[in-house]
Amino acid sequence: MRDVAIIGVGLTEFGELWDKSFRKLTAEAGSKAIIDSGVDGKDIDAMYVGSMSSGRFVGQEHIGALVADASGFSHLHIPSTRVEGACASGGIAIRQGYLSIASGMNDVVVVGGVEKMNDVGGSSATETLATAADQEWEAFFGATFPGLYAMIARRHMYEYGTTKEQLAQVAVKNHANGAKNPHAQYRSEITVEKALHASPVAEPLGLLDCSPVSDGAAAVVLCAAEKAHEFTDKPLVKIIGSGQASDSLALHARKSITTLDATVHAAHMTYEQSGKHPSDIQFAEVHDCFTIAEICAIEDLGFVEKGKGGYAVENHITTLDGSRPVNTSGGLKSKGHPVGATGVAQIVEVTQQLRGEAGQRQLSDVTVGLTHNVGGSGATCVVHIMEVN
Amino acid sequence: MRDVAIIGVGLTEFGELWDKSFRKLTAEAGSKAIIDSGVDGKDIDAMYVGSMSSGRFVGQEHIGALVADASGFSHLHIPSTRVEGACASGGIAIRQGYLSIASGMNDVVVVGGVEKMNDVGGSSATETLATAADQEWEAFFGATFPGLYAMIARRHMYEYGTTKEQLAQVAVKNHANGAKNPHAQYRSEITVEKALHASPVAEPLGLLDCSPVSDGAAAVVLCAAEKAHEFTDKPLVKIIGSGQASDSLALHARKSITTLDATVHAAHMTYEQSGKHPSDIQFAEVHDCFTIAEICAIEDLGFVEKGKGGYAVENHITTLDGSRPVNTSGGLKSKGHPVGATGVAQIVEVTQQLRGEAGQRQLSDVTVGLTHNVGGSGATCVVHIMEVN
Repeated sequence: MRDVAIIGVGLTEFGELWDKSFRKLTAEAGSKAIIDSGVDGKDIDAMYVGSMSSGRFVGQEHIGALVADASGFSHLHIPSTRVEGACASGGIAIRQGYLSIASGMNDVVVVGGVEKMNDVGGSSATETLATAADQEWEAFFGATFPGLYAMIARRHMYEYGTTKEQLAQVAVKNHANGAKNPHAQYRSEITVEKALHASPVAEPLGLLDCSPVSDGAAAVVLCAAEKAHEFTDKPLVKIIGSGQASDSLALHARKSITTLDATVHAAHMTYEQSGKHPSDIQFAEVHDCFTIAEICAIEDLGFVEKGKGGYAVENHITTLDGSRPVNTSGGLKSKGHPVGATGVAQIVEVTQQLRGEAGQRQLSDVTVGLTHNVGGSGATCVVHIMEVN
Repeated sequence: MRDVAIIGVGLTEFGELWDKSFRKLTAEAGSKAIIDSGVDGKDIDAMYVGSMSSGRFVGQEHIGALVADASGFSHLHIPSTRVEGACASGGIAIRQGYLSIASGMNDVVVVGGVEKMNDVGGSSATETLATAADQEWEAFFGATFPGLYAMIARRHMYEYGTTKEQLAQVAVKNHANGAKNPHAQYRSEITVEKALHASPVAEPLGLLDCSPVSDGAAAVVLCAAEKAHEFTDKPLVKIIGSGQASDSLALHARKSITTLDATVHAAHMTYEQSGKHPSDIQFAEVHDCFTIAEICAIEDLGFVEKGKGGYAVENHITTLDGSRPVNTSGGLKSKGHPVGATGVAQIVEVTQQLRGEAGQRQLSDVTVGLTHNVGGSGATCVVHIMEVN
């Protein structure tokens, strides 16, 4: 398999973007990434797009072709493919783009992620998001994601003594990071006090434990590493590991609900391929759709011992100036969570950190970062490790 | 890139399958393919699933994980990815599975395609299918696929003198083939007379010019060719070319509506990779969502000169005993068109023909076949060429 590098990144603002259409969002993120990469339209061999539910959110399927079209590339007739894995759609799109270059089929591939969720209104958005859960065993009976993750949180508290204050501290940290991110949906700091007194959503999760409904798009340009110098002089960020795993859609079918086995398996694949160990990962973007999800993630990725995620957060290990910063972008909680875009936006953040382009939230001396993107309550997980030369 | 072989195939009946759920259909096709291939669950490295609009048809997204789960593989935690490209979703799934093996990442991959369209009722099915067209420029104004293809047909008649009788003969041929296919939705022959007097749908297309709304699933097992002998002694059917191309979503943006440029480009990629020419293709499954689509397809694939598709059909070149049989399975018209399953079902038919397992519709002495799968009115096209050793 050939080495693959990330040579361009682009992001729209995340938020309630009433003045930007689905196709405008994709074109904006894509053109930023393409300009950043130095490639020309004619250099692009293929496109991949991650989107969870464009059919329900904006009444448009067939968005692989749509995005190529909206980007002004319909005359190039390149293959353009949409992939879907609920909130992990973006991470899967990255992985398919990666494979298509690693295989030797393509040299330059644009990967995008997009979701426009606000047009349908709040309850419809929740209903559409619930199509990522098991329709027959969960959604049909009224379960939505706040409820499913609340069960995970309750059980984590019972098994490991995790506290509501620790959950709140995840949100506080991510808002602090998001306040430094010009693309974030919420650019304001919050306090533990404020998080603990937010409106309850599904006990023990309150409003500030939940990521928002968002519009937004992200894009990256991937290139065969051996050809990257033809387009860019920027530091070469390589994808050195790509892992993906699945699990039962419904929570009740798992042997444990506090360990996401899909994360464990995807991480294992990625560590194995890259030759890295959890201790080699200097920083990470993880899937904090709810605060409890970040705590499970840092445990299941092997950053801390199982059950110690809450304590790690409490001890500021994962803050910007901690020993292992997590969600420097603000994470899904504060940056926003346009579901199909999230996995691609995580890659954008890690690339910007590795290139030293992360502005006020720049980490010092980082060379290895990881992304962790989850679908549903953990039925899909995608993990990537990037390294800069 | 490594060689990739098809070592197992499986198909459900296509039709109005009120007693089979979405997940039951996928499990049925998948288990047939796996049994046919000789692989064991633990041999499977990954799954890909093509589905156009499971979110709208059955309220379920995240079906990569769902299909792995429904197939009893959730404990294996393998990557399972859904791809979508409207009615070309199945063909794209094949191509992603192919790339993941060609890259060296995987050895054994199960690829499925599925759609359950009847649950939502006829007008909702049409509305959901229209999400494969351009929502802002076509669907919003009331255009549906029969109307879009009717415009293509009218223009083809105007430019090339194609007749309604020639369109009818496509349907007659495909029904004759479908009558020999135990999995087909319509297993009855029709006459030109009957087709010409069918209820008009969108002039010049009548009811018997249109493929039906269908439920069904198809699956294949792909394997690195060098490892195929570990699992099967059947004739080795290799994928020797894989092409995919895109075009504008809306018809009005194309330089011609009687030539599908996406077909032309995808075919070119596939001929180039395989070293085959149109004249080497002994038989093909092409995307006859409407009778006019088959006529355009055999022209755009280079089987006949542009504009001569109608005459080729009239002269019985494409019948089972013609010089170049097309849609031996009955095609979308007669076999049925569960949209996400179609591209995979085409691969099943070509594999069965190449292995000599096509029963009453078996061709004699065939070694090279082609599949042609289209999304929307031609914004996506996927072409594969298979050869048996």
